[in-house]
Amino acid sequence: MAKPNLLMVVPAKWSALWASSLDAVNVLVHGRDSYAPENVDYVLSFRPPPGLLKSFPNLKAAFSLGAGVDGFLCDPEYPRRVPLVRFADKSLAVEMAQFVLMHVLIRHRCQRLFDEAQRKRQWRQMALPRRTEDTRIGLLGLGEIGSFTARRLMELGFALSAWSRSRKSLPGVRSFAGEAEFDAFLGQADILVCLLSLTRKTAGILNARTFAALPQGAFVINAARGGHLIEADLIAALASGRLSGAVLDVFENEPLAKASPLWNHPKITVTPHIAAVSQPAIAVQYVLDGIALFERGQRPENIVDVETAY
Amino acid sequence: MAKPNLLMVVPAKWSALWASSLDAVNVLVHGRDSYAPENVDYVLSFRPPPGLLKSFPNLKAAFSLGAGVDGFLCDPEYPRRVPLVRFADKSLAVEMAQFVLMHVLIRHRCQRLFDEAQRKRQWRQMALPRRTEDTRIGLLGLGEIGSFTARRLMELGFALSAWSRSRKSLPGVRSFAGEAEFDAFLGQADILVCLLSLTRKTAGILNARTFAALPQGAFVINAARGGHLIEADLIAALASGRLSGAVLDVFENEPLAKASPLWNHPKITVTPHIAAVSQPAIAVQYVLDGIALFERGQRPENIVDVETAY
Repeated sequence: MAKPNLLMVVPAKWSALWASSLDAVNVLVHGRDSYAPENVDYVLSFRPPPGLLKSFPNLKAAFSLGAGVDGFLCDPEYPRRVPLVRFADKSLAVEMAQFVLMHVLIRHRCQRLFDEAQRKRQWRQMALPRRTEDTRIGLLGLGEIGSFTARRLMELGFALSAWSRSRKSLPGVRSFAGEAEFDAFLGQADILVCLLSLTRKTAGILNARTFAALPQGAFVINAARGGHLIEADLIAALASGRLSGAVLDVFENEPLAKASPLWNHPKITVTPHIAAVSQPAIAVQYVLDGIALFERGQRPENIVDVETAY
Repeated sequence: MAKPNLLMVVPAKWSALWASSLDAVNVLVHGRDSYAPENVDYVLSFRPPPGLLKSFPNLKAAFSLGAGVDGFLCDPEYPRRVPLVRFADKSLAVEMAQFVLMHVLIRHRCQRLFDEAQRKRQWRQMALPRRTEDTRIGLLGLGEIGSFTARRLMELGFALSAWSRSRKSLPGVRSFAGEAEFDAFLGQADILVCLLSLTRKTAGILNARTFAALPQGAFVINAARGGHLIEADLIAALASGRLSGAVLDVFENEPLAKASPLWNHPKITVTPHIAAVSQPAIAVQYVLDGIALFERGQRPENIVDVETAY
């Protein structure tokens, strides 16, 4: 039986992926190898060029290299008959939790203030401005990554709530669900952390109306997608004092342009989309396992509903 | 029956303690109230002036306002017949774990590098230089605070080991014990975190010999006491590249002198002894509960062995 053909549509820095020796599949690299469209059995990518996938008549499945699949579903011609598989490795949840914990703690423990005091040789000893148990963290999204992150934050003494499409049950986390409960959720979130998938419904969810519903002086962390945030609304909310600060790991256009006002904003921390990075060795195994299942007529877990994007 | 007299020997910034309305005891404030030495039944302090406690012939117990009792035991005339009680509230373990996690993550996730890249408007996207599971954290001390901190770090994927006087058993933590195993412990600690009590045996434990036994480029966090560290040895180890950086929350002399070379050292983060701060309301309750037990002829938990300081 012929080996299936796996087409990798990934940036050159992901060359570690196609350098792996893969006995079970033939690897084709988009932009490097020539191939006939009808020979493409599987695709692995973060964000294939719009229209590319519909040109493969025999495509059996598409694998996302990230936990989010918005890079596929933003293609209006994505072939809906093709199963789309999400990368949902534990390592991504661990890395995301690390990122969120670090920035929540830098904020909660006033580490930026101590950094500044150090530069000025000032011994600025003080108690925490807010006790941990009175610091309410609101997670947007409570899937695998959100749940893991929520547990780690609770163990450090924070008060947790989460908002999601459908009500979730996680001990210790106050659950809010759907549009009807969105404002009640926001009203008690001192630190708002966005971990949502990017869909038509969540695009632009971090906007002026949302910021106005948060407690005065709230803090925002976006580690999901740049498309969740209306940048101009964030800058206005920081200027008015409604928000006290933000951490942004993701942007509408990446890399963030040199001229962006976000870079030197004194209340914004910018990181270069590094909150959770897929590891090539783990990603390769996830694709091989998935292909093996499809070839046997079975289906892997984590197939995305192309209509709802979940 | 007369109320017992509690003498508070604390800095003025702790005035919240003596402002509490305490029905069960008479509060005396050292330096504010006049009192007869024979009337002092209990003392609450971080660090009473040497020789003070021996002048109280009827002292029934001394309460430490911190988890460490070195501030009492550095008094060569501490009256050894007097029980010394340590403050061991869960809130201190939570705050210490927050501090250690934050600084481990800032180091592990290269946040200082991203801060610098942001100032330069550079999009410096990269994978973690070392995978989390290959990052070995060595804790000096595995008491209540150390154990709580170890569990939180393990849940974030780090490899944990600990060194303590006697062997401890904590699932997932490699335990090293006593002087015989000290070098083996150090040889595998990429990030060394000091949470020890300060005793005659642990004073100066963070010295040139210790740093030489760590892996090349190791990182050190001291959140215990300034007396654990030989500052000149740290500066030399950073200069030679043996150590790559350090976080110091505690110092031999506090506040840290304006002229100290630690303030502007590019590889050292200085914080003003804020890793874990006793909360007045909780501390007052701990003292009242302890006094109630002593008055009934019982003894509270967390009485320190004055000889070993544990």
